[in-house]
Amino acid sequence: MEQEMGQLLRRLRSERPLVHNITNTVVTNFTANGLLALGASPVMAYAREEVADMARVSGALVLNLGTLTAELVEACAIAGQAANEAGVPVLLDPVGAGATPYRTESALRLLREVRIDLVRGNAAEIAHLVGEIREIKGVDAGGQAGGAAVDLAMRAAAKLGTVVAVTGREDVITDGTAGYVVTGGDALLERVTGAGCLLTSVMGAFRAVERDRLRAGAAALALYGVAAEAAAAAAGGRGPGSFQIAFLDALAALDEASAAAAANAVRRIAIAPASAGGAR
Amino acid sequence: MEQEMGQLLRRLRSERPLVHNITNTVVTNFTANGLLALGASPVMAYAREEVADMARVSGALVLNLGTLTAELVEACAIAGQAANEAGVPVLLDPVGAGATPYRTESALRLLREVRIDLVRGNAAEIAHLVGEIREIKGVDAGGQAGGAAVDLAMRAAAKLGTVVAVTGREDVITDGTAGYVVTGGDALLERVTGAGCLLTSVMGAFRAVERDRLRAGAAALALYGVAAEAAAAAAGGRGPGSFQIAFLDALAALDEASAAAAANAVRRIAIAPASAGGAR
Amino acid sequence: MEQEMGQLLRRLRSERPLVHNITNTVVTNFTANGLLALGASPVMAYAREEVADMARVSGALVLNLGTLTAELVEACAIAGQAANEAGVPVLLDPVGAGATPYRTESALRLLREVRIDLVRGNAAEIAHLVGEIREIKGVDAGGQAGGAAVDLAMRAAAKLGTVVAVTGREDVITDGTAGYVVTGGDALLERVTGAGCLLTSVMGAFRAVERDRLRAGAAALALYGVAAEAAAAAAGGRGPGSFQIAFLDALAALDEASAAAAANAVRRIAIAPASAGGAR
Repeated sequence: MEQEMGQLLRRLRSERPLVHNITNTVVTNFTANGLLALGASPVMAYAREEVADMARVSGALVLNLGTLTAELVEACAIAGQAANEAGVPVLLDPVGAGATPYRTESALRLLREVRIDLVRGNAAEIAHLVGEIREIKGVDAGGQAGGAAVDLAMRAAAKLGTVVAVTGREDVITDGTAGYVVTGGDALLERVTGAGCLLTSVMGAFRAVERDRLRAGAAALALYGVAAEAAAAAAGGRGPGSFQIAFLDALAALDEASAAAAANAVRRIAIAPASAGGAR
Repeated sequence: MEQEMGQLLRRLRSERPLVHNITNTVVTNFTANGLLALGASPVMAYAREEVADMARVSGALVLNLGTLTAELVEACAIAGQAANEAGVPVLLDPVGAGATPYRTESALRLLREVRIDLVRGNAAEIAHLVGEIREIKGVDAGGQAGGAAVDLAMRAAAKLGTVVAVTGREDVITDGTAGYVVTGGDALLERVTGAGCLLTSVMGAFRAVERDRLRAGAAALALYGVAAEAAAAAAGGRGPGSFQIAFLDALAALDEASAAAAANAVRRIAIAPASAGGAR
Repeated sequence: MEQEMGQLLRRLRSERPLVHNITNTVVTNFTANGLLALGASPVMAYAREEVADMARVSGALVLNLGTLTAELVEACAIAGQAANEAGVPVLLDPVGAGATPYRTESALRLLREVRIDLVRGNAAEIAHLVGEIREIKGVDAGGQAGGAAVDLAMRAAAKLGTVVAVTGREDVITDGTAGYVVTGGDALLERVTGAGCLLTSVMGAFRAVERDRLRAGAAALALYGVAAEAAAAAAGGRGPGSFQIAFLDALAALDEASAAAAANAVRRIAIAPASAGGAR
């Protein structure tokens, strides 16, 4: 896995995939800077007049419902369908699903109208998407213990018929039968707005250079965690502001050593949810 | 006051109140990061389809007209009325009131259609809101000497029938008969866009955990100032960019010692505007 | 030129010109903070109900199509025409021109409907605007060698009938017959989203205090480059996150010594494109 992660990172930096983000107003700047730091090419385009054109020429399309409006959801649908026709992978970040009915319904609408390559959310968002209601507070609701997250991700992947990543203290990515658990990261990520949103876009960047969704996703999750740990070491003691900036620096500084560390943070899981616990 | 400030800070951090912001595109990221750093839970939601649902479950609703549009003002009204029905306090930040008629009229419309718990603005914005015309330049117009600000805040509170905070080199918060003058802070705050907008949202976070509007507001103003001073000490010499990041760090680092310092920055004022000068 | 640059900088800081930005959601915060750091007064206003009022009282109006929508383009046209009537210079940043037909057409529409004082873009954007198609990737497409950029800028200025700035590793500003080549800057600018957008707004701030478009523009370009070099020296080794913050600090720290360095980065070019090469 170490070699593979190093390869994916090099490929991302040489190809500089264009990642088309239709995202929320809170995180646009951080998302663009994070993708640039990593080595990808971000583009934000929202107008119904152009989203199809932009999506078609992108390496990945990321749909994020953090500050959704009727116009934005419509643009997401148009872009998503154009991406589907062009074979461009579409990732969905259902920010705050469950916080209001409108958020849940809009995410489900996109899951119906667009062939989604991967859904990433925290446990509460994913649980709401698949009708397993939990309390949610705002859009930054926290994590969940490892075993439960694996089970949830497996059920969600089966129900939604796509790859699902449930992220938190520990991350899980699965297609419902196999996948990976990824450890690492730093709790300060929860104090930076858009850390989850940027992660989805980073997963889009890796997906743009690697067809295997689980491998691409695991690499993104693990390298993101390694960058967070490096940022925490560099600046975490000063607080979330310094951490946020150090995290951008760390994304740019990811290298072969990071790939080695990232490979160690990944554990393969397989088929029966029950076996997932043993994978840790 | 020191004990009270420490208590409010602890309460905020344990309750992590959800603060629903309908705010401008310039400051969304900084507002969300500032609230997260402080220990609150920010949420941004703008769609008329969901703002009422979100406002109802929030601890406070903050309406900010910095980049208003017809849709945004409509969303503010819908959210504000839902918050009123649910007993959720609504704070108004009339950014750039007076800079254009549309801004002034939209702020006044919200004051008519929504029961506003607190209005925070700089002296020019508040003066425009109550028809005391002054020159305004952009949306970052500066402060005013202490005595005049107290008088202005008192008149505005009486006229608008709510609590008013006039912030600048020195801050005043009053319900028209009593209140507080708060000193401290740092001039670098004026070089960071959204420092005022974030302050209103921070006032919302404190209001969410404390029913007394004047005490909640004074605590927010004073602790904000203490954080600014800490940030200036840590990074101000390097410039406004470093200060901005250090300020987020400082919001996260506010502690009992900060509460003591904050308590010293607050002076109670009472009834007749004329007596306000003596309170300093 | 050194004296002149120092004078312009002092004038900007004493006049604090109001720069009205109608810009994209990715860069609003960075643009506002950059203008504040420099010493200008940023304002963002987008609603058709108020853009004309705001544009009329501004020192410069900057139109940026980075996340254009039909409403935004309409607001740009309204604001631009009001600015024209009031004698307020209008700068256009055709972000991503060529990336989609909608972007190109919207930029061309504004060039037809509004008297544009200056267009700034990278080589690919400018080439697309004048129908010299090149491949463009996302909205951050890179630079071009000096000689070609001079020729392109000269042709574009002639064709568009206004001053054009083509920026990249080396910058060119010209009215089609004379102008300046500006060297300096730092490659890390390409890793910070909105570095180009902020540059256009900074050009607006200098234009607001200086009628000569070429001199104002050259000063802006050169001082921007000097700030980037200072930022790279202060923090570039840590990465693009630290650089971004150091750059805001550096804009605030620009002084007489910076003006001297900036003057050295500027070379005058004249009339025939062929002679431009010799100017370096």
